Amino acid sequence: MVTLDFDKLGGLIPAVIQDYRTGEVLMLGFMNAASWERTLAEGKVVFYSRARKKLWKKGETSGNEQIVREIRVDCDDDAILIKVEQVGGAACHTGHRSCFFRRLEGETLVEEGELIFKPEEVYKKKKP
Amino acid sequence: MVTLDFDKLGGLIPAVIQDYRTGEVLMLGFMNAASWERTLAEGKVVFYSRARKKLWKKGETSGNEQIVREIRVDCDDDAILIKVEQVGGAACHTGHRSCFFRRLEGETLVEEGELIFKPEEVYKKKKP
Repeated sequence: MVTLDFDKLGGLIPAVIQDYRTGEVLMLGFMNAASWERTLAEGKVVFYSRARKKLWKKGETSGNEQIVREIRVDCDDDAILIKVEQVGGAACHTGHRSCFFRRLEGETLVEEGELIFKPEEVYKKKKP
Repeated sequence: MVTLDFDKLGGLIPAVIQDYRTGEVLMLGFMNAASWERTLAEGKVVFYSRARKKLWKKGETSGNEQIVREIRVDCDDDAILIKVEQVGGAACHTGHRSCFFRRLEGETLVEEGELIFKPEEVYKKKKP
């Protein structure tokens, strides 16, 4: 079993999520030990939500799950890189492919990239 | 001026560093407000070292600086993605191109990729 260093950040490690085909960085989330173990067990990305203080399976509401294709661990065991197949084509709750859809230009942020889905249509569904 | 949310992580935000040509994720570091401002001002990546508790200009010892080519901010302003030109071709202190040079295979980590430099040659230099 691979041991990660969760201690540096109070029980969390940052996880960079990258599209396994295009190499585009889709998002960054945090994992605690439990979400790391579930990600390994299920082959789909499970984060720890700092806001909601609970495990958060990516796509549990939107359906846009992230299927794990490759996992890499950094040189000091305190960050991971996961290459995924992004179901639905969009990782961001705004409907953009990547959460990093704003580029710094001078002193302002410029939005780029197509909207893959309309958030109001995806998130209007009530949870069962 | 773009405002980032440094509060969620006690004054820090994670910065994903990606090779601007190949798309390879090279490393993940942390920035505080001062390192973010220096990165913008100098056009080279400056992190905050959590271990040494001070600003850390990437490449200050090895010479392997990271020249900023593009900066992206995520949807909730608490993570950034910087596309860089990696001077010297290697971001990792181990001499590997990327800090994520170990791939999870079953339950073990497999090292991949060529060594760009020998750490004992690069870091033997005494600081002035």
